[in-house]
Amino acid sequence: MKILGIDPGTRVAGFCIMQVQANGSILLLEAGCLLLSEKDTMQRRLRNIYDFFDTLLKSQNIQSIALETPFLGKNAHNFLKLGYVRAIIYLLSDIHTVGLHEYAPREVKKALTGSGSAEKDQVGRVVRALFPQIATKKIRDDVTDAIAISFCGALRQKGGHF
Amino acid sequence: MKILGIDPGTRVAGFCIMQVQANGSILLLEAGCLLLSEKDTMQRRLRNIYDFFDTLLKSQNIQSIALETPFLGKNAHNFLKLGYVRAIIYLLSDIHTVGLHEYAPREVKKALTGSGSAEKDQVGRVVRALFPQIATKKIRDDVTDAIAISFCGALRQKGGHF
Repeated sequence: MKILGIDPGTRVAGFCIMQVQANGSILLLEAGCLLLSEKDTMQRRLRNIYDFFDTLLKSQNIQSIALETPFLGKNAHNFLKLGYVRAIIYLLSDIHTVGLHEYAPREVKKALTGSGSAEKDQVGRVVRALFPQIATKKIRDDVTDAIAISFCGALRQKGGHF
Repeated sequence: MKILGIDPGTRVAGFCIMQVQANGSILLLEAGCLLLSEKDTMQRRLRNIYDFFDTLLKSQNIQSIALETPFLGKNAHNFLKLGYVRAIIYLLSDIHTVGLHEYAPREVKKALTGSGSAEKDQVGRVVRALFPQIATKKIRDDVTDAIAISFCGALRQKGGHF
C-alpha cells in the first residue's frame, strides 16, 4: 500500500510517498517539494498544485492521502491560503478515488517521537534516523513535515497504534 | 460580455450569470443555486462544486467571474470552508482562462444601493427592483447575494463607477 503525505502551502508544498510492505515495514519511496512562484496569481498556483498532484496520483498507485488537520495560527490570511491548497487535495482525492486521512499535529509528532508535544527539530532528527537515505541531505522543513505526515499515515494504515 | 457571480458555500453555492449588452444595459440571464448534501464528505462536495461550475463554464461563454473578498467572521472553521470553495473557483478560472475579479462586500452593497453599509434586506429590495423577473419569486439569500455580486462585476466590467 502506498501513502502520499502532503504538507500543503501556496509557496512550497512538501510531499512524500511511503510504502507499507507485506511484512509491515515502511519504505520511503520519494520525498520532495513543489515550489510555487509568488509572481503567479493564486489561480495559477492552485492550477500548478492541481496539475502536479494529479500527475503524481495518475502515475503512482497511491491508496491513501495523509494530511494534517488545519489549525488557525496567528494569521487568518495564511489559514485561508492553507484552505485553498487543502481544497485542491480534497478535490483530487475524490477524482482519483483515493482515501483521505487527517491527523492532528500532536498525533503526527507522537507517531514519530512518542510525544505529542515534541519540538520541530526533534521530529526532524527522528525522520533522519528512520530514513537514512535522507540523513545526509539538506532538506526543507516542508519535506520533513511531509515525511512525518506520511509516516504517521503509514503507521495508522497498517493498523499500528502509538 | 457575460459575467458569472458566485456566492460560495459548502452547503449552498449561489450563482448568477449576467450579460452586459453593447448599449451598456445589464441583463440577468440565469440565477440559482447548487445545493450540497451535508451527508457527503467535503471531498465529494468540492467535486460536485467543481463539476457544476466546470459544466457551466464549458457551456456558457463566460468572460469574467465575480466573487466577494473573504472576511474572517466569528467562526474560523466556516472561514476555512469558504476557502475550500473559493479554491475550486480559482482553479476553474485558470483552467478555463476566465478572468476573476473580487469585490469587497461594501463595494457590492454600494453598487446596488449607493451605500456601502446597506442592510441585507435593502440589497434584496434593490435586486428585486432591478430585475423584475425575479421580483415575485421566493429566492434564497445565497441567490440574491450572487445576483448582487454579478451586478457589481457587470458594472465594473463595463467601466461604471459607483
